Amino acid sequence: MIPNIKAPEVVQSIQWKEDHLRIIDQTYLPRREFFLDIFEVGRVWEAIRALRVRGAPAIGIAAAYGVYLGVKDLPEDDMQPFHIDVEGICEYLATARPTAINLTWALDRAARLAREMENEPVAKVKEALLELAKSIHEEDKRICADIGKIGQELIPDVAGILTHCNTGSLATGQYGTALSVIYHAHLGKKNILVWVDETRPLLQGSRLTAWELEKTGVPHRLITDSMAAWVMKEKGVDLVVVGTDRVARNGDTANKIGTYGLAILARHHGIPFYVAAPVSSIDFNVASGKEIPIEERDASEVRAIGKQQVAPAETPVYNPAFDVTPHKLITAFITEKGVVKPDFEKNLEKIRPRQD
Amino acid sequence: MIPNIKAPEVVQSIQWKEDHLRIIDQTYLPRREFFLDIFEVGRVWEAIRALRVRGAPAIGIAAAYGVYLGVKDLPEDDMQPFHIDVEGICEYLATARPTAINLTWALDRAARLAREMENEPVAKVKEALLELAKSIHEEDKRICADIGKIGQELIPDVAGILTHCNTGSLATGQYGTALSVIYHAHLGKKNILVWVDETRPLLQGSRLTAWELEKTGVPHRLITDSMAAWVMKEKGVDLVVVGTDRVARNGDTANKIGTYGLAILARHHGIPFYVAAPVSSIDFNVASGKEIPIEERDASEVRAIGKQQVAPAETPVYNPAFDVTPHKLITAFITEKGVVKPDFEKNLEKIRPRQD
Repeated sequence: MIPNIKAPEVVQSIQWKEDHLRIIDQTYLPRREFFLDIFEVGRVWEAIRALRVRGAPAIGIAAAYGVYLGVKDLPEDDMQPFHIDVEGICEYLATARPTAINLTWALDRAARLAREMENEPVAKVKEALLELAKSIHEEDKRICADIGKIGQELIPDVAGILTHCNTGSLATGQYGTALSVIYHAHLGKKNILVWVDETRPLLQGSRLTAWELEKTGVPHRLITDSMAAWVMKEKGVDLVVVGTDRVARNGDTANKIGTYGLAILARHHGIPFYVAAPVSSIDFNVASGKEIPIEERDASEVRAIGKQQVAPAETPVYNPAFDVTPHKLITAFITEKGVVKPDFEKNLEKIRPRQD
Repeated sequence: MIPNIKAPEVVQSIQWKEDHLRIIDQTYLPRREFFLDIFEVGRVWEAIRALRVRGAPAIGIAAAYGVYLGVKDLPEDDMQPFHIDVEGICEYLATARPTAINLTWALDRAARLAREMENEPVAKVKEALLELAKSIHEEDKRICADIGKIGQELIPDVAGILTHCNTGSLATGQYGTALSVIYHAHLGKKNILVWVDETRPLLQGSRLTAWELEKTGVPHRLITDSMAAWVMKEKGVDLVVVGTDRVARNGDTANKIGTYGLAILARHHGIPFYVAAPVSSIDFNVASGKEIPIEERDASEVRAIGKQQVAPAETPVYNPAFDVTPHKLITAFITEKGVVKPDFEKNLEKIRPRQD
């Protein structure tokens, strides 16, 4: 086991500042490191919706703080309307984005906590909701570190690694999920080269992952998504590792659009395909990928890049933000509870958290 | 057989104007329809290099006119230096881009013609080189029409068709290659929906193909390259049709980066994968794809989109402009001499032009 490493201090993507949330606004990266101070729940919703904060675990953390921001100024003299408001705030935040399970997972925890405390004074419930957000935040950091330590054992001493989207410190409390595996392999002195898919339409690979890898000194090459197959054939890719927004009970995995194609390409070239996933990303209420809602986003994301128009203004567009990779194309899941291999239906069940 | 159709008059991408070449500068599309008047060979080289004129057949046509522009003002009193200059001009133009065979094919024809006329007066050779360029231009229009008519017979009456890059009127004398098949199916009243890959890094799909299809009223949806797999799985793609920059004797096919990945995805989903190719794209001197040189282009094409930076300024990049699809992933070639099915080595030989 490699020792605990210093987190790649590229940035603290989410920070709690006494009475408000500070996030790095990821829509400005890599050009500007702009921090956004958020004091109220509506701005949290907007920040999630507009991908100022993104990455399934980071969305969950931000939403948990969002619940506290939503309740902190509510009157404390009347418990009943307060509890109705908590439920409403959780339901509202859940509408910001549909696919990532971590969002509803964090909000469900907040709502459950409030229900359990329904006979406690409102001020105490507020305090508890803030503590919950902080503990989800801290817990995510520990989980990401564990995923990295466990996952790096799968990386050969010399390895070409292909990844998609951004799954790093920006997407989580720290380290990341798939990128945590990569960071831990690098800091464990493995000789790795990371192939970074740019990840159109929103370019999380080129804007965010390349930026994180540059900051942390991990050797990498940026490519367009369309180059992945050729790189696998010509450049020596030993494994693919990606993150996830939601895993179904049978292992079907929703992740950033393009992941499904990569899984097919990896299979064709005989390359292992790993999904790094905190247990909180597994939705045991969903039997298969067919039940996972896929967010479709605005046509402008494809027609333009930033402010630059790249297609005729009215061209019809299809813009799904995610796809679902069937479990049969996945070699293993890397979780904080260990590496999970097929049969996934059976083996994911083994790491299912007990319902408290 | 469907009747001759009116060419989709989106644009005459290449025109000869008495004493000079006029091209539409494709780097400005779709924002501006800017025509460039070119009077000398160095500007032809630059226009090919900078992709102002692009598409394998269009490059061949432009280069043929380029030879004439290079020789037209040479002194006519001395045959020997003239002929040395012709060879030099052809060699020079061939360096503009390495992968498309049509470029060297057109230049070889010009050089051969000049050699055959080495005892003729210089003025007559000049005239003949201009006539050759015009005839390559006209010939390409006929070939593209024939490819379209032959290819559309492969299209079901109701069909989802996925294509990559731009293979239309902009890339050829008119109609295009893969897009000619699509135009002819549409004008033959087939009910088609075209899925247009945007084709990073240079976005020939979104900038050029979506623009052509909009102008000609062919129903289409623009997607990012990373969406192709999901569209095949979820949206009903019945075939993929692409163009080519060079086909080896055994059927291995160099085409715009991303084509190889699409061929794998098509195979995985059981979807036929067609390559529309004029016979001039087949390089019978090359045994397999391994011998085809692959152009690598500047990192800035991946780090930025137009003038907009999308990655850290110094991020290392791999930027191959083409890939090679192994012949085993190709269902058939659509040529002006008919549809060619495997065994390609044997069946491409049957349509090999006789050496005159």
